[in-house]
Amino acid sequence: MRAVVLLSGGLDSATTLAIARQRGFSCHTLSCHYGQRHEAELTAARSVAVALGAAEHRELEIPLGQFGGSALTDPAIAVPEQGGAGIPVTYVPARNTVLLSFALAWAEVLAADAIFIGVNAIDYSGYPDCRPEFIAAFQRVMALATKRTVAGGAIRLEAPLIGLGKADIIRRGVDLGLDHAMTVSCYRADDRGRACGRCDACRLRREGFAAAGVADPTRYV
Amino acid sequence: MRAVVLLSGGLDSATTLAIARQRGFSCHTLSCHYGQRHEAELTAARSVAVALGAAEHRELEIPLGQFGGSALTDPAIAVPEQGGAGIPVTYVPARNTVLLSFALAWAEVLAADAIFIGVNAIDYSGYPDCRPEFIAAFQRVMALATKRTVAGGAIRLEAPLIGLGKADIIRRGVDLGLDHAMTVSCYRADDRGRACGRCDACRLRREGFAAAGVADPTRYV
Repeated sequence: MRAVVLLSGGLDSATTLAIARQRGFSCHTLSCHYGQRHEAELTAARSVAVALGAAEHRELEIPLGQFGGSALTDPAIAVPEQGGAGIPVTYVPARNTVLLSFALAWAEVLAADAIFIGVNAIDYSGYPDCRPEFIAAFQRVMALATKRTVAGGAIRLEAPLIGLGKADIIRRGVDLGLDHAMTVSCYRADDRGRACGRCDACRLRREGFAAAGVADPTRYV
Repeated sequence: MRAVVLLSGGLDSATTLAIARQRGFSCHTLSCHYGQRHEAELTAARSVAVALGAAEHRELEIPLGQFGGSALTDPAIAVPEQGGAGIPVTYVPARNTVLLSFALAWAEVLAADAIFIGVNAIDYSGYPDCRPEFIAAFQRVMALATKRTVAGGAIRLEAPLIGLGKADIIRRGVDLGLDHAMTVSCYRADDRGRACGRCDACRLRREGFAAAGVADPTRYV
């Protein structure tokens, strides 16, 4: 069994890779430079791919940042330190649709059985493309978009964290032997991968470790 | 009204742009370098965008070719001269899914009302991602993937050629004043945009002009 696993270098996607490996998949991991503020996450992704025995790790440069519209890709928009109402400015327009479409292209060429993505919709930032209904809709696209599907062999879309809160995800990682210290979640980590401790991603992660009763191994600035 | 129009430089997408303009949309055209064999189509797209009064034309470099798996992106796979049974080797894995995902990102940032794509499923090459059911599935993704859709304002996906044969598309272009000579459909046009006259795309185009009773303005090698 073969899978393409979207790997950002954060906690969720690393846990997703650990789950895919535990289920016996040979994993082809995919990380994307899409104009995000720092490279620390992508450096982390490389380490995680090696540590978890990915069969192959690829990085793509995708021109998503040039459309702007997000604090993660437009230096003129500040990363907020307080979660407010609604969808935060760290939302990147159509990001998961774009990432999944590249994963689909690779999965078809590899004749992979599944694509894994680490979205979750419990302790999350309210991004529309992390919701179960979005995942179901993209699964339908996958069932129609490729040559494979015409012959009847659809590629499955797996989102094993979709119903889990952050504490559950962290405990799951501990059970699977994942070294969380390798992962970087911060939206504005420094070039050594140290987290700011104050952005939305840091807050959700820190609260997750506290709720899970697991010591937080994150290196903060 | 504002629209993002996917513009390859071929006959179908140029006709689609003409239709969107006639319907009163301010059109933002998007062309992608995805590793295809020649640049003539993209050069044609630029001319078509200007001639049809696009508000803005953008070109993206997208790393789709590096997965291979298609005669259009892998020099080791020959472009066939005879249509055979099944989906031809010119099919590019997940191409329309990838193109639509970038169009979606841009449409969200532009606050566009619609995305136009020139797919059609009558006189076509059998690509799975040109079928009406694929378009419907991607429309569903668009209705769930973005910040806009959470607020209730979905972006529409328009495929105005979906039910038309090639001759109808050509007649429609004539009615709209489109100069077909500007467009390049050939899979392996030379660097001056002259068509081979023998590939599947050339065959469908040539037959379309004949069936439409319109003189074929294509420049062949």
